[in-house]
Amino acid sequence: MNVDGKHYRTIWLSETDERVVQIIDQRPLPHQFIIEDLTNVSEVARAIKDMHIRGAGLVGATAGYGMFIAALHAPQNSPIAFNAQLGEDAKILMATRPTAVNLEWAVKRQLAAMAEVDGFAKKIQVAKTTAQAIADEDAEFCRRIGEHGVSLIEQISQRKSGETVNILTHCNAGWLAFVDYGTATAPVYAAHDKGIPVHVWVDETRPRNQGARLTAWELGQHGVPHTVIADNVGGHLMQHGQVDLVITGTDRTLYTGDVANKIGTYLKALAAKDNDVPFYVGLPSSTFDWEKRDGIKEIPIEQRDATEVKYIAGAHEGDTKTVLLTPEDSPAVNYAFDVTPARLVTALITERGICEASEAGIMGLYPEKRS
Amino acid sequence: MNVDGKHYRTIWLSETDERVVQIIDQRPLPHQFIIEDLTNVSEVARAIKDMHIRGAGLVGATAGYGMFIAALHAPQNSPIAFNAQLGEDAKILMATRPTAVNLEWAVKRQLAAMAEVDGFAKKIQVAKTTAQAIADEDAEFCRRIGEHGVSLIEQISQRKSGETVNILTHCNAGWLAFVDYGTATAPVYAAHDKGIPVHVWVDETRPRNQGARLTAWELGQHGVPHTVIADNVGGHLMQHGQVDLVITGTDRTLYTGDVANKIGTYLKALAAKDNDVPFYVGLPSSTFDWEKRDGIKEIPIEQRDATEVKYIAGAHEGDTKTVLLTPEDSPAVNYAFDVTPARLVTALITERGICEASEAGIMGLYPEKRS
Repeated sequence: MNVDGKHYRTIWLSETDERVVQIIDQRPLPHQFIIEDLTNVSEVARAIKDMHIRGAGLVGATAGYGMFIAALHAPQNSPIAFNAQLGEDAKILMATRPTAVNLEWAVKRQLAAMAEVDGFAKKIQVAKTTAQAIADEDAEFCRRIGEHGVSLIEQISQRKSGETVNILTHCNAGWLAFVDYGTATAPVYAAHDKGIPVHVWVDETRPRNQGARLTAWELGQHGVPHTVIADNVGGHLMQHGQVDLVITGTDRTLYTGDVANKIGTYLKALAAKDNDVPFYVGLPSSTFDWEKRDGIKEIPIEQRDATEVKYIAGAHEGDTKTVLLTPEDSPAVNYAFDVTPARLVTALITERGICEASEAGIMGLYPEKRS
Repeated sequence: MNVDGKHYRTIWLSETDERVVQIIDQRPLPHQFIIEDLTNVSEVARAIKDMHIRGAGLVGATAGYGMFIAALHAPQNSPIAFNAQLGEDAKILMATRPTAVNLEWAVKRQLAAMAEVDGFAKKIQVAKTTAQAIADEDAEFCRRIGEHGVSLIEQISQRKSGETVNILTHCNAGWLAFVDYGTATAPVYAAHDKGIPVHVWVDETRPRNQGARLTAWELGQHGVPHTVIADNVGGHLMQHGQVDLVITGTDRTLYTGDVANKIGTYLKALAAKDNDVPFYVGLPSSTFDWEKRDGIKEIPIEQRDATEVKYIAGAHEGDTKTVLLTPEDSPAVNYAFDVTPARLVTALITERGICEASEAGIMGLYPEKRS
């Protein structure tokens, strides 16, 4: 999407040197916009591990480009040495974020693609086209989520006779988490770009504030009207008719329709239900879990460090400062996700279309998954 | 309650000079514990206005002591001059926080009490005893809320065979908001002091973080086990059986049982309902609104400055620093309260006892209010 009027993806090959991968370093956002060059595998690994980039789709795409860089720099004295180096680099990349499914998937797809052709030059060429393909597919899936989801916004816009449609979102399932468009945001960008008046309530999303930092920034840069709110506010807005629909992303969606997403999503889904506000979840099918049945019982919830709750970083006089918010010796806990039961989800918006958040609905769109 | 092992109220007359009122300056909490002397009316007014102290009960008590200080310093050359000065000071105090009901009530009670006696010395004496009475009554009402509410915790403790009872609270309806004990916290302190094992989940309560700053501090100082959580976490904890009951305070409770309290309370009440967790509200009867029927439609919700959402202050290297959390030009809104409909409230805990959050329940405890 646009940054300061210019179109960007979150990752691309440098226009001046196609051996260099460029990313938007997301750590200093929203206070500074910095493009970072990645020229070797250890720089790519560090960018993933230290969260210069994050989000399922973007982590996968970065690993794809990482394997292209690995191929570029692998020794060309023998096929064995070349493959050995690729194997090493694959391990390094896969170890950066052990729980990210897309990471392993992208690395393995690259290894398989390169194994199918002979000669160093061809392998490198295949690695490049595969990296581009992974990124293009990610962007295309998100674009289609937008295409399907925009119909929901259009209907509400018509019902409101063209008055602004108010959408609430939680966390950042925006284009910064993918290669372009995002999932939760794709229908919003599609509506905005079609001239449908939209406004987004951006949950700040404590404790890591991905909403206040990233979603607010990307919407602002693309020119989408938005307002940042504390996570506590959404229920009140819904009680007063100020939210027409909710769209969030998801980290894992069971085939039964239960949705694991950023902590606090469940509370917004409850409020949406209580106020007859439709609650949608945007996702590429890669985030479906085809095995687990019961989200609350079966999905393990990551606990992150308590310091993320007790301390917060922000901009202070041109610098970044971290401040303590609680008594120094008060304990804190930091669950990263929660599970929204399928009964609270109005529908899922996937790259194939919109379906009910139920086994029947999901299997209807993905019949090949029927066992 | 206790601070570092010593019992404090939030306001008292200095032991060494009874013409001086002392308060705990709540602004530097939890990072610094500072006792402030108030020696004249403008100091008292500033302490209320600039929120050195806050909370309905404490604002009222401070205004009460403020009128005692006003009487001490009023000119004694003529009753007319004395009364004129008192009238001036009353206006100054009442203007500090225009929407605080207890403020006006305390000031008027002082003026009425002084009007009933003759002579400067007697008026000053009456002002002193009235100030003490206002503070004592506030503390006594909170103590009784604790006495009634502790039975609820005791029952759960017995059902759990003495295992720790987990209580979730939102914002600060603790002793720092009153003269002592607090409302939401009174049953917790009573249980803790009786040796019932309790643990409190403290919602940080964005955007002003009264939970992370004040509730965590006061529980910690009194030795009550607690854990600070982001406001997003409570629903997840309830889904996993980690919350036995919720207790919050209230800023205004309608006689129909609708509860206006700090923004975000409604979301916790929804989660409590969805998970069969009892949701209680502690309140002195002074916060009942005997006129309005429908909380969502009729209670005006204060909107505070957006900077409270966009910026946050915390401790940094022994100093307080304020940092920017959002893009500088992203708008934010800041609703201070929301309304929890009576249907989500299990019961109210008042100084007279526990009742259903309904007109029948409330009128049963306060039959004199039946019209």
